[in-house]
Amino acid sequence: MASRQDIVAACDRYLEALSQGDVDGIMALYAEQPTVEDPVGSPEKLGRAAVREFYEGAVTIPLKATRLGPVTVAADRAAFLFRIDVTVGDQQIALASTDVMTFDEQGKVVAMVAIPDADAFDGEPTS
Amino acid sequence: MASRQDIVAACDRYLEALSQGDVDGIMALYAEQPTVEDPVGSPEKLGRAAVREFYEGAVTIPLKATRLGPVTVAADRAAFLFRIDVTVGDQQIALASTDVMTFDEQGKVVAMVAIPDADAFDGEPTS
Repeated sequence: MASRQDIVAACDRYLEALSQGDVDGIMALYAEQPTVEDPVGSPEKLGRAAVREFYEGAVTIPLKATRLGPVTVAADRAAFLFRIDVTVGDQQIALASTDVMTFDEQGKVVAMVAIPDADAFDGEPTS
Repeated sequence: MASRQDIVAACDRYLEALSQGDVDGIMALYAEQPTVEDPVGSPEKLGRAAVREFYEGAVTIPLKATRLGPVTVAADRAAFLFRIDVTVGDQQIALASTDVMTFDEQGKVVAMVAIPDADAFDGEPTS
């Protein structure tokens, strides 16, 4: 079983790799047969090839991902809330997401479900 | 479909009712046949009677629940990170939880999964 510290470090590496557009770095965190549902309710990406293709699309828009508050870890699951800042043309857009990751015994991500929200910062405190 | 505003309000009412030990207030947010998995990995409580029994147990320890950052809402799902302050004897304990709720068309909670973490504030920033 991966320790809490390992799991939190993996979540932070994920946000760092996402901010750097580092798809190899992201894929290094995933297990052999991962699933990704991002956003929740969309068709699930199954397997490393489909997951890689998803992230290759995602990183075409440069973004900065900043964790808000602690990662919470219980059993094989971790959840973390983060802010995403993107620049589209001359517009700055801030959104938030809660990502929920399921880890295997080796500390690799077997499943990720994201609950992103483009309206999360409208009239809400950002910290 | 419930609006984002309705869903965020329901999440905040949940934290308020939890802080007040108001089990009726909590149950008013749940649909007719809800499921609760709290903590994640524990046996799921199925149906209003089992869910009520769970909360009646939970509120025997007075707590203060404070949301950290925005609720994120996507499709039928909402996630929110919050801090839980409890006093056990003369000890103050702070933990964090990310709760993920699935809402029905009427804005009632059909499923809740909690990822609570008693170690979340050890050496981590609390905001």
